[in-house]
Amino acid sequence: MSAETPRTTPITVTAEQLAAVKYNSDGLVPAIAQDVDTREVLMMAWMNAESLAMTMREGRMVYWSRSRSELWRKGDTSGDRQFVREAWYDCDGDTLLFLVEQEGNGACHTGERSCFYRAFGGQ
Amino acid sequence: MSAETPRTTPITVTAEQLAAVKYNSDGLVPAIAQDVDTREVLMMAWMNAESLAMTMREGRMVYWSRSRSELWRKGDTSGDRQFVREAWYDCDGDTLLFLVEQEGNGACHTGERSCFYRAFGGQ
Repeated sequence: MSAETPRTTPITVTAEQLAAVKYNSDGLVPAIAQDVDTREVLMMAWMNAESLAMTMREGRMVYWSRSRSELWRKGDTSGDRQFVREAWYDCDGDTLLFLVEQEGNGACHTGERSCFYRAFGGQ
Repeated sequence: MSAETPRTTPITVTAEQLAAVKYNSDGLVPAIAQDVDTREVLMMAWMNAESLAMTMREGRMVYWSRSRSELWRKGDTSGDRQFVREAWYDCDGDTLLFLVEQEGNGACHTGERSCFYRAFGGQ
């Protein structure tokens, strides 16, 4: 494997910022990934404290897979990695928002670019 | 109170679409609200089946308040209503995305337009 590309940019998080994050009773917090260029919402998944720390350190989205109960370094298998450009937390500290550069075909395992590809109603 | 403004547009949901929505063990599903014009992610909150049905019927965002354990018709108190323009569900059916017209000052109770007004790192 080659070394990480220059597209990974670690985010230096303060202790105060990390302390503001509130995890649910399973130790998880929802993380929204939004395309930094198109502003399309790509997906929502979950992070635990370890995957959040990895995300910041590596500058790549690392989730916690609830179905597999393991760390999910997005794109390690598919090649569709997500490089973090901005990271935000909300007023309650219980939801995270990441603006990412989406690599490859997209975020969704179905092959769609966004996981939100089905509309309610007649669209 | 005056009648609903013309900005409310009900969304006619099919039984198949509703059946695709998966609720967690508390009967809730996360709902992301995104500004339909600026594409800014405004907030993430929760819906139960009743609030989702109300949201579709009224064309206005209705959440379930976990802290107050009650229906939360967004903007009834603040005036900052959210009118639904598009509604999407994700590949797993366990997260919803709404593109909304945000009324008033914004989505956040702090007075900020988006609840995601604090960045990790040095921004």
